[in-house]
Amino acid sequence: MQRPVLIALLAVAAMQPRLQAAGPNEVERWDRFEAALLAPVSGNPFTGPGLKADFTFEHRTVTVDGFYDGNGTWRVRFMPDAIGTWTYVTHSDIAALNGKTGQFTCFKPSTANHGPVAVARVTHFAYADGTPYYPIGTTSYAWIHQGDQLEQQTLATLKAAPFNKMRMCIFPKNYDYNKNEPQYYPFPRDAAGNNDFTRFNPDFFAHLEKRILDLQGLGIEADLILFHPYDRWGYSKMPPEADDRYLRYVTARLSSYRNVWWSMANEYDLMKTKTMADWDRYFRIVQETDPSSHLRSIHNSGPMYDHSKAWVTHVSVQSSDLEKAVDWLATYRKPVVYDEMKYEGNIPKRWGNISAQEMTRRFWLATVSGAYAGHGETFLDPNDVLWWGKGGVLKGESPARISFLRKILEEGPGGLNVTPDRYYLNAGIEGQYYLYYFDINSPAEYEFNLPAGGKYHADIIDPWNMTVTSVSATLEGKTRLALPGKPNLAVRLRRIN
Amino acid sequence: MQRPVLIALLAVAAMQPRLQAAGPNEVERWDRFEAALLAPVSGNPFTGPGLKADFTFEHRTVTVDGFYDGNGTWRVRFMPDAIGTWTYVTHSDIAALNGKTGQFTCFKPSTANHGPVAVARVTHFAYADGTPYYPIGTTSYAWIHQGDQLEQQTLATLKAAPFNKMRMCIFPKNYDYNKNEPQYYPFPRDAAGNNDFTRFNPDFFAHLEKRILDLQGLGIEADLILFHPYDRWGYSKMPPEADDRYLRYVTARLSSYRNVWWSMANEYDLMKTKTMADWDRYFRIVQETDPSSHLRSIHNSGPMYDHSKAWVTHVSVQSSDLEKAVDWLATYRKPVVYDEMKYEGNIPKRWGNISAQEMTRRFWLATVSGAYAGHGETFLDPNDVLWWGKGGVLKGESPARISFLRKILEEGPGGLNVTPDRYYLNAGIEGQYYLYYFDINSPAEYEFNLPAGGKYHADIIDPWNMTVTSVSATLEGKTRLALPGKPNLAVRLRRIN
Repeated sequence: MQRPVLIALLAVAAMQPRLQAAGPNEVERWDRFEAALLAPVSGNPFTGPGLKADFTFEHRTVTVDGFYDGNGTWRVRFMPDAIGTWTYVTHSDIAALNGKTGQFTCFKPSTANHGPVAVARVTHFAYADGTPYYPIGTTSYAWIHQGDQLEQQTLATLKAAPFNKMRMCIFPKNYDYNKNEPQYYPFPRDAAGNNDFTRFNPDFFAHLEKRILDLQGLGIEADLILFHPYDRWGYSKMPPEADDRYLRYVTARLSSYRNVWWSMANEYDLMKTKTMADWDRYFRIVQETDPSSHLRSIHNSGPMYDHSKAWVTHVSVQSSDLEKAVDWLATYRKPVVYDEMKYEGNIPKRWGNISAQEMTRRFWLATVSGAYAGHGETFLDPNDVLWWGKGGVLKGESPARISFLRKILEEGPGGLNVTPDRYYLNAGIEGQYYLYYFDINSPAEYEFNLPAGGKYHADIIDPWNMTVTSVSATLEGKTRLALPGKPNLAVRLRRIN
Repeated sequence: MQRPVLIALLAVAAMQPRLQAAGPNEVERWDRFEAALLAPVSGNPFTGPGLKADFTFEHRTVTVDGFYDGNGTWRVRFMPDAIGTWTYVTHSDIAALNGKTGQFTCFKPSTANHGPVAVARVTHFAYADGTPYYPIGTTSYAWIHQGDQLEQQTLATLKAAPFNKMRMCIFPKNYDYNKNEPQYYPFPRDAAGNNDFTRFNPDFFAHLEKRILDLQGLGIEADLILFHPYDRWGYSKMPPEADDRYLRYVTARLSSYRNVWWSMANEYDLMKTKTMADWDRYFRIVQETDPSSHLRSIHNSGPMYDHSKAWVTHVSVQSSDLEKAVDWLATYRKPVVYDEMKYEGNIPKRWGNISAQEMTRRFWLATVSGAYAGHGETFLDPNDVLWWGKGGVLKGESPARISFLRKILEEGPGGLNVTPDRYYLNAGIEGQYYLYYFDINSPAEYEFNLPAGGKYHADIIDPWNMTVTSVSATLEGKTRLALPGKPNLAVRLRRIN
């Protein structure tokens, strides 16, 4: 559909003197190209004529929205996904922004850059370069709204933690233990706190972007929550046109960050002023305006959104019912991530005080159900700095165990799906690899029934004490294995022939 | 309906010389009166003309079936439920059994005799004398089929254990770890093992009765399982007329034992040759032929029987889903007993190796859901003596904790129903008593919201370590209580004004 239009525009551009936009000449694959363009401002530049750019690689052209960044500066950003020469041309009804062209070379990514994460093998994830990605998430809803000191502490904590995904709100948060004002507001506001939803605050977004890059530097995906109900500033009840403009502004600014994921909401069903049609529309706007097709999900409190809708890439779910994973995987044929399954901690709220043992157990249950899990932490703090809301330090005992699990996953073949067993949950790859978790069961022996032809090495894994005990005997066909007769143990079987 | 007939019969009796049947002159209330009658045997006395007796107390008459007990002896048994003078008269088409009359005095029961258990306060139980009964059951399916030495050991174990109900099969059991032949068979059989289902083996039943009395002496209800699927002798696939005759014989023999409960089946749904109409018929036969109306239930493997049917006195359920108790209580308005919620142990089967901690947890979850729980134990044994099948000794760590819970229940007011709380499960009596169990939750504080006017004493209970820690402060209205911030704790609130 765009090709004919594009050709016409390029033809026009070719007839004019080439107006180079300010951008780099070289960009790492899956890194960010950004061009800045200046123009005189008249009226409200956030609602006035916009800016688009077509980025062309060989026979493929991608159209990208630009955005106004204040101070008479418009920007267009793009994440090139192919190595080689890219050219681009801008389009705008503002003359000074129109017909700017340029080119850059996209080169081989650096070692730590595996590209954006996407769905792979139906119910799993991988980076764009094919490296498996096992989401081991945590949640700190408002960590970017706490000021530099605490935010730096949060980053230092994350550096030593096992997490490779952070659920975080774009908007600030108003809730128990979360009553402070943010450093930045997304929209300009007057002294009385009235928002001008027709404009954005570029400083707010620059700060957000800085934190996204901080996470990227730590190998952490930023699972950005676009809307949430815990609000006293008005962001949860904006008029529809403001919602839509906000989504387009966000995708224009952030789609080029390879570690961005889109979560339409935290607890969408608690936002009583929004209808299901609103949520569908948000999904479609994000899907249509993000040229890099980052992952898209929506998170529930009670009733689940219909995750079979085409624009949902994976199931992000609040649930403590780990047994449902198998059904959801079969129903949706999409990855299932238990992004909220209660928090390790000690606050009075029933969702905020499970033990480290229980959190560890749930990570394992999700794993052997072919799904993924997310961590969060809520310990009472004299200054109300709870990890789940504000970040800071981790006080719990589950992260070490989650790190242990992550290591086991990374040692494995990836893409573990539930494999049939008479009694116990396990995920694996038939004939190759099996990871059992016995949960509350504590058999003193178990007869594994392995496919003919394979010889397997067994390890008995203690997820809490973080030990792996190698079994000397080799397993083959029906083999009875002596087990410690204690609950919460795991067994890993790896084919050796 | 029976009164006119009775009067006629008594009138006939009065005209004849009184033929006293052999029975005691005095019977304790809720104990067993038994009269033995001799007659010449012709044909099959188990299928020939039967024997009934009418027991009359003041203006009330109860008709009771007698039974043939071998050696030319018929017996009629009866559990008198009222103190005073009872008279009786027998009826039979066998002349020597007909028109026998007698009387006995029913006197005050001894201290340990509280009468049979019945449903009380809708979803709870009480003995006939009003003493609350909190079922704390265990299961040993085939313990009476193990020979005297092991049976005596089982009884010795029970004497020191916390259990006041035993789920046990009448028929022997054939299953993994349960392969031995029984000492007694319920029906005569030939050398090839063919049963004569038209006759009973009185020795079998005498032995069963002995064990029922042994349990009674220990204060344990005998929850008798009438049918079960784990069979190699043919008892699970008898013709309908044999099933019915068996039920009538059993009720005739056993209804006078005050500690008898009737369970139509263990895992009724696994008995594929029986239809739902069969189960309904069994219930009706038992209901109609048991003059003492002992408790009646049926136990499932998968799908549940329709417990709303009028002949079901309480819900006996196999389930690990303790959360369903609240729904079932609301649906059926009958007591709910989780008679099988997996077993403490270490066998490979998934239902046979939960930890003592998990068993303890489930007892507490059932309790604070307004329901009741049952224990069982399956530890591997070199001689295949697993408590759940054969009895013997208890090896697990849950019985001590179950004993601790029983003590707490017995200290309480009884009849605990779920009371509303924002977050946590608790059962109690509004304005008087509350028992909270926090399960996986480990709040470091909690604000209780108690009804106005009451002052409450709080205890923090550790169900695993079996400690009760008294809180010095008194609770009133909305009171925040500091808690240890550990999982699996309970709190008891008792009104003190």
